Amino acid sequence: MKIAVVGLGLIGGSMAMVLKHRGFASKVIGVDNQQTHTQKALELGIVDEVADLDSAIASSDLVILSAPVSVCEKLLPHILDLVTHQVVLDTGSTKTSLLEAVKGHANRGRYIATHPMWGTEFSGPEAATLDAFDGRANVICDAGESDKDALETVERLYKLLGMYNVYMGGKDHDVHVAYVSHISHITSFALANTVLEKEKEENAIFELASAGFESTVRLAKSSPAMWMPIFKQNKENVLDVLNEHITQLRKFKSCIEKENWAYLTELMEHANKIKDVLDRKQ
Amino acid sequence: MKIAVVGLGLIGGSMAMVLKHRGFASKVIGVDNQQTHTQKALELGIVDEVADLDSAIASSDLVILSAPVSVCEKLLPHILDLVTHQVVLDTGSTKTSLLEAVKGHANRGRYIATHPMWGTEFSGPEAATLDAFDGRANVICDAGESDKDALETVERLYKLLGMYNVYMGGKDHDVHVAYVSHISHITSFALANTVLEKEKEENAIFELASAGFESTVRLAKSSPAMWMPIFKQNKENVLDVLNEHITQLRKFKSCIEKENWAYLTELMEHANKIKDVLDRKQ
Repeated sequence: MKIAVVGLGLIGGSMAMVLKHRGFASKVIGVDNQQTHTQKALELGIVDEVADLDSAIASSDLVILSAPVSVCEKLLPHILDLVTHQVVLDTGSTKTSLLEAVKGHANRGRYIATHPMWGTEFSGPEAATLDAFDGRANVICDAGESDKDALETVERLYKLLGMYNVYMGGKDHDVHVAYVSHISHITSFALANTVLEKEKEENAIFELASAGFESTVRLAKSSPAMWMPIFKQNKENVLDVLNEHITQLRKFKSCIEKENWAYLTELMEHANKIKDVLDRKQ
Repeated sequence: MKIAVVGLGLIGGSMAMVLKHRGFASKVIGVDNQQTHTQKALELGIVDEVADLDSAIASSDLVILSAPVSVCEKLLPHILDLVTHQVVLDTGSTKTSLLEAVKGHANRGRYIATHPMWGTEFSGPEAATLDAFDGRANVICDAGESDKDALETVERLYKLLGMYNVYMGGKDHDVHVAYVSHISHITSFALANTVLEKEKEENAIFELASAGFESTVRLAKSSPAMWMPIFKQNKENVLDVLNEHITQLRKFKSCIEKENWAYLTELMEHANKIKDVLDRKQ
């Protein structure tokens, strides 16, 4: 199967690598408006050739749209205008806007809205890896709106990546990811700024930073170009979660201020319950 | 050298294991008021024998105090009352209260205040590991107050653990760790509560939780019995950092509410600078 990958970043690059390595893709055509990305992807053998968007679609059987969500929103209707037999999927972190953008499109059935729940704080084709995706969930949204054959192809693709498919409505997806992904990025960005703002002695951060700090602040290395459009598209859900998070932090603050150590302990014991949820994954 | 380890948790247990494995300790005597801990430590071969505090001190050359900081504060003056030639170190995450508790003690010189910057979210002797400590900083506080020979022994001990020693005043230590360790734990506990509070569909957390979420929420599994006394002892510094962190989160909230995407991008770009600081460690 000939595959066009539109957006040669961490996700698009990793998908291209794995799908070619496992024989799903006979040929990968790369599309990216950043020449540094296309060059690097060619150099690393992630793509077989580079083309402009329209010719890449014409020459492919499957189109993977793995650009920032703002770009996906612009490109997807145009891509659907051009498809004849092709299957189109996107890998974006928000779904409502995108599904709205192609609602009622004549070729809507060729499109499957997906979100593989994998990523790292790194970006660009040089971050692509064969170890990606394995064992994680892939969300397929509003599956009933897609053609059966197109859906089956995409389900097969994600299984080949080692993922298991989870099905939900686009709006539900956007609520859930605000909790299990978007808020983590905001707290991490804000934590980095907290430390950088007050801890002017960079040497102290450098020397004392423990593994715990590195773990909570890791996502603060993430790309603003990718995350700004996500927060923009998922504004209402992200604000809901952010308000709740600030409320929770204020509870910790109030306990410490009032020296209510019993309630502080209760708050931490409650938080410990996240262990049960996460451990079910292992 | 015969070593008494008071508090057979993650840190005490790991120290005992590594020091014995590398030949620094000829014998390890374990002290812990939880019988499950002493039993487990004996079973795992972490300690050679178990004793009560006073006899353990009498039979040892070096005492490692690795209990919760509230327990350290109570035990340390008593331990110093009993020492003759022994070297005493503690591994606690706060230093000001402890240094205050032994100020002017006749045997103050035998004590070295240390804080190895390593840990995991797990606790108890079963969490102890030979991989602990390596490559991380150990902070030695108010080193000038300790006897030269005792200090040298402790410096040698930490080097053997693969750590490098960093020197600072106890008060400075407590400010820095509020930034690079304590706040990470609070944000992680609060993030877990945020998600548990609003995301009642535990299956959604379970299925969708990405590696990014797991990384930011990992510390929420930490032991309340260990952390409550740390927040209590470092109250003022922790509140300073927590206030700053809430201010930083409010900036993100305000940008998203007002759709000020340019300033949101700036905030994230600023946070990206943490990469430069952390990468120096590698």
